[in-house]
Amino acid sequence: MSPNPEWVKKLVVASPQGSELLATERASSNLDVDQLAEYLFGKNELETRERVLKVLTADPVFDKSQNYFQGREARIEASLAKAKRLRQLQVEHNWSQDEYLVANDLLSEPTPYGLHASMFLKTLRDQGTPEQHKLFLERAEQYKIIGCYAQTELGHGSNVRGLETTATWNQSDKTFVLHSPHLTSSKWWIGSLGKVANHAVVMAQLVIDGKRFGPHPFVVQIRDLKTHEPLENVHVGDIGPKFGYNTMDNGFLLLNQVKVPHVNMLARFSRVDPQSGRYQRPSNPSAVYGTLTWVRSNIVLQSGSVLARGVTIATRYCAVRRQFQDLDAKGNVGENQVINYTMVQYRLLPLLAATFALHFTGRSMINMYEEAQKRMAAGQDAGQLSDANRRPGPEEINPGTDLLADLHATSCALKAYGSTVAGEGLEVCRRACGGHGYSSFSGIGTWFADYLPTLTWEGDNYMLTQQVCRYLLKTARAVLAGTAGDNDTSRSFKAFLARRDTGAAFDILTSDKDLVDAFAWRVAYLTFEALQHRDADKQSWNSLLVDFHRLSTAHAQYMVVKSFYDALAAESAPGSLDRQTTGVLHKLFRLFALHTLEREASEFFSSSATTVRQIQLSRKAVMKLLEEVRPHAVRLADSWSFPDWQLDSSLGRYDGNVYEDLFHRASELNPLNKVVFDPYPDNNIILKKDNRTKSKL
Amino acid sequence: MSPNPEWVKKLVVASPQGSELLATERASSNLDVDQLAEYLFGKNELETRERVLKVLTADPVFDKSQNYFQGREARIEASLAKAKRLRQLQVEHNWSQDEYLVANDLLSEPTPYGLHASMFLKTLRDQGTPEQHKLFLERAEQYKIIGCYAQTELGHGSNVRGLETTATWNQSDKTFVLHSPHLTSSKWWIGSLGKVANHAVVMAQLVIDGKRFGPHPFVVQIRDLKTHEPLENVHVGDIGPKFGYNTMDNGFLLLNQVKVPHVNMLARFSRVDPQSGRYQRPSNPSAVYGTLTWVRSNIVLQSGSVLARGVTIATRYCAVRRQFQDLDAKGNVGENQVINYTMVQYRLLPLLAATFALHFTGRSMINMYEEAQKRMAAGQDAGQLSDANRRPGPEEINPGTDLLADLHATSCALKAYGSTVAGEGLEVCRRACGGHGYSSFSGIGTWFADYLPTLTWEGDNYMLTQQVCRYLLKTARAVLAGTAGDNDTSRSFKAFLARRDTGAAFDILTSDKDLVDAFAWRVAYLTFEALQHRDADKQSWNSLLVDFHRLSTAHAQYMVVKSFYDALAAESAPGSLDRQTTGVLHKLFRLFALHTLEREASEFFSSSATTVRQIQLSRKAVMKLLEEVRPHAVRLADSWSFPDWQLDSSLGRYDGNVYEDLFHRASELNPLNKVVFDPYPDNNIILKKDNRTKSKL
Repeated sequence: MSPNPEWVKKLVVASPQGSELLATERASSNLDVDQLAEYLFGKNELETRERVLKVLTADPVFDKSQNYFQGREARIEASLAKAKRLRQLQVEHNWSQDEYLVANDLLSEPTPYGLHASMFLKTLRDQGTPEQHKLFLERAEQYKIIGCYAQTELGHGSNVRGLETTATWNQSDKTFVLHSPHLTSSKWWIGSLGKVANHAVVMAQLVIDGKRFGPHPFVVQIRDLKTHEPLENVHVGDIGPKFGYNTMDNGFLLLNQVKVPHVNMLARFSRVDPQSGRYQRPSNPSAVYGTLTWVRSNIVLQSGSVLARGVTIATRYCAVRRQFQDLDAKGNVGENQVINYTMVQYRLLPLLAATFALHFTGRSMINMYEEAQKRMAAGQDAGQLSDANRRPGPEEINPGTDLLADLHATSCALKAYGSTVAGEGLEVCRRACGGHGYSSFSGIGTWFADYLPTLTWEGDNYMLTQQVCRYLLKTARAVLAGTAGDNDTSRSFKAFLARRDTGAAFDILTSDKDLVDAFAWRVAYLTFEALQHRDADKQSWNSLLVDFHRLSTAHAQYMVVKSFYDALAAESAPGSLDRQTTGVLHKLFRLFALHTLEREASEFFSSSATTVRQIQLSRKAVMKLLEEVRPHAVRLADSWSFPDWQLDSSLGRYDGNVYEDLFHRASELNPLNKVVFDPYPDNNIILKKDNRTKSKL
Repeated sequence: MSPNPEWVKKLVVASPQGSELLATERASSNLDVDQLAEYLFGKNELETRERVLKVLTADPVFDKSQNYFQGREARIEASLAKAKRLRQLQVEHNWSQDEYLVANDLLSEPTPYGLHASMFLKTLRDQGTPEQHKLFLERAEQYKIIGCYAQTELGHGSNVRGLETTATWNQSDKTFVLHSPHLTSSKWWIGSLGKVANHAVVMAQLVIDGKRFGPHPFVVQIRDLKTHEPLENVHVGDIGPKFGYNTMDNGFLLLNQVKVPHVNMLARFSRVDPQSGRYQRPSNPSAVYGTLTWVRSNIVLQSGSVLARGVTIATRYCAVRRQFQDLDAKGNVGENQVINYTMVQYRLLPLLAATFALHFTGRSMINMYEEAQKRMAAGQDAGQLSDANRRPGPEEINPGTDLLADLHATSCALKAYGSTVAGEGLEVCRRACGGHGYSSFSGIGTWFADYLPTLTWEGDNYMLTQQVCRYLLKTARAVLAGTAGDNDTSRSFKAFLARRDTGAAFDILTSDKDLVDAFAWRVAYLTFEALQHRDADKQSWNSLLVDFHRLSTAHAQYMVVKSFYDALAAESAPGSLDRQTTGVLHKLFRLFALHTLEREASEFFSSSATTVRQIQLSRKAVMKLLEEVRPHAVRLADSWSFPDWQLDSSLGRYDGNVYEDLFHRASELNPLNKVVFDPYPDNNIILKKDNRTKSKL
């Protein structure tokens, strides 16, 4: 749009300026932001971010100024252009996979290449034979073919075993026939399939001589490599607009008796012998399902920074926004910063604490995963990793001692909890910004909407809790039977049984360790209560689902509190932090733990982990901690080191020039202000495209 | 798009069909849907809906098929076209205001006429003199001028007293000069201002001889009535895209020394005497602030049906969607309807109960408001209605006896609670639909996003709780001083004080009345605890905000439980319902009350309203009630009587043909499937517009 009129350009924000307020905030805390940032991410990652950011911001393809204004078609076209440019830059600058991912993070929007670059390549790599790597993976890595991973169907998401698509082995010509028997068997929600993929890894029920062998992966070409038109007997397209994620071409796919050669069934683990036509069982079934555990572990790792984006924006804006005088203030002291109100602190600061809690939890989750991978590579514990979305068989997971079973349950519990805290926390942040939080320019809404699927995919957050409880019940049974190995869960169960009758009496208000133990005690109590219901009272599985959800959440909260505690206790880590910073992190640890305990109060004293009095005192303690953390809030947010370009938020600007930016975007960037509407009901011409208006408005 | 290929057209949904499943659901309950619908809305309203619906669906202007696909510009243009047509139809069919509102409800999207038809007309009517009615109101009612209500500013939302815009009285030529001194004084978020309004009621600080008299309403013309260009020294436009509500042109407005005649200050209550230039105090200040109470009462009334839309969609879809076998099922019994899982019931059915609870509460809220209006018209209790968003003075509200103070507090508490339950409940409904809930075609996402501002505007839901507590504390003081009149609140406070030391011992599990009393007891306990903190311990107001929010929520929950109880107890009402229906409603009452009690457990026994054991038993009772309500779920949803056209949801279709509709919208209506993208990174031409593809895809 044309610039504002002269008299408008002269207008300034009523003092104090946002920049002054944030400067004061930063001056009032001596927390070392750079030191903390380095502790969180390491020097290398921070440097990589800066280097990659320079490249992106210098490139017009990545201009964000119209993102919030564009409709879906424009958005997805722009997003594909960005994805292509990102790939070109990866080649140009010879970026590692990590650097490529950093670039994607900074871009902060799903692109149509998303599933090609992740699940398609990963599946070919993990489940393909060397021959198949040569045939598919190499071309895919060079983007000569673009692919996706087609598992979910219109009628089946969670229940993979219920997939309807069939792949029937044809001994005569040694081919598989891929077929969609019903409308509900249409592949659905498949990222990168809607517009860009010309190949798909299709999960289909393997059928040999009329016998079913369960879902297996098949590589299927779906579009012409030149014209990019769908091939014969292939019906493929984009599934339409969504609540968010609209820069991704989630697609549908129907196959009508489509023939593929024997080599197109990914055969690293299970295969059909082309000569005999006999099915050969997985050599190592565990790895088949390892992928989802890997995906979940990454969701846990990301949940902290996902939430931190919203917290950064809300914290900065609540320090800039002033509303009302303090009711007890004497005389005209001017309006109070919103962040000074305890009701705002109570909503925002525990989430600030949660960002760090989840970050440290994610780190330990990833370490645990890598450890498990080593052991699996060493051939141990085969067959333990299972897909949380399959209908689970009772014998699936071994008790206690098994690191992989532990990993599986942990990844399920933490994925469900972490993504829920992050997703719901973002909406709390948005509302804490008042009316302006609702503007797209707040930068929270789109981010929230794009993140929400994470609560449903890779194991619905409610579904997953059943897996967790199955593991906890098995561990409890093993502990009672004396067959349990020595891992954290069985240890805390034994400790609970030992003191069950004498009671707990944790000193949660002065001892950090007791605070952690109180969370462990609650988990043990709920587990043995559930075990009683299931094994002794013979209650149906279905009748216990609500209890199971509570139990799984309790287990996740325990693990998060413990991870935060361990991170601060660990010798190595905080060594790099000065006492001041460690002190603030310690307050955040207690704030997160006590605030969680207070919110789950009833379970803590019905399990007699705490007394009612202790709950009331923890409420007081929480209010005290809010007061102590508040002066460091802005600097703590700063330590997450989000560049303004990534946040793309008027409210979250580092410099605090919130209102100037809101006004600029609305008055000068908003295309709707280039046109004039006729307002009268009887005039049906509603739009006057008028050149004068361009210069006028 | 062109039709699907022949082989696709032949595909059907894997049996059982959704239609069969919903038919079975409806057959398995003998709840009389028509009878209940009539009880909820009355014969007249239901008939009006049907009549108006026929008119709308017959008119091409109201076609919804592209709503979910259009970008913002297309959406708002279409929405203005609908608004205009709606106005034309109102004249054609000589619709009453109620019929016009029914039409708007059925349309179910905010339109650019929204604020003209509500706040602009209402403000002119309520606050204008007969002379001003002639001058402004009449033309506005005939849509010869289009207006809006401009109060909120870029820098001031909640705190109306902090508004920066000034209106300075000029004795010499008897005019007011409207001026925006800072960028932050720009009017912001003003509905209907961005594109369509040519007049605005501007709330500005009245200044006479340098003395300020607080915010007052001024009628200001902002755009030319012919060219619709902004007038000189007026900078006006649309504020840009939002999380939702994008069919509304929320706008900004800056005024540079704009002169308006004396008659443009709405002067029914306060005025400037043109001769002396002296300010004349409001004759009846109460009415000045009555508008917001009226708005809040309507929000309470609507919250039930707002939530019911999401519940209807989720309930129907969860009855159609099948996933996994029951884990304890023997043999292959096929997949289980999602609604049979207790974890789904636990999320959905209490919300189903809440829709009715909020509906009955809204009814009694409106009755209370109308009663208060009568008394105010009779000149009683003047000066009691106050704007919850003003910084409240301590003396503002009188204790106990005052119906208007009661009304004010009730409207604040219920607006905050009702809109929060509805808004957050919609997201629970969306997630209960699994992956497909995320598709725009679920019909929940847009509805949720459009509703969210309700939690912030007309008194932020957190802010409002302070008003409620101020009233409760005053009432408590009056009760202690023996000066309290006889209203429900003071009665329950007296009852609490009488039994405070002997204890409560409510029989919540068998007596409905005791259940209601337990909620009242909790409110009284929290009130006198807060009073202790404020009056005896002299704690700062700010330090008590979190407690106040808890207290206000407790008060609202009590009123909702009581309203539901009264609605069923009332002789008249359920007389029109058979025992079966009344019985089901009674289960919903207990489900809502006990589920709420269970979730707020810690407050119920820290106030010793219940024992820990009773809480555990209420959990069991809730699970039992879920089982008993479940067979009636679909029919209960049906009784809300939403036509498919209004829901515009694939998942919520009355006939259960969910998957057919999802597929149709994605494959045949989705414009993105008319174009072909080039997928390769090195080819920068990303879009091929190709005619063949139109016929091909």
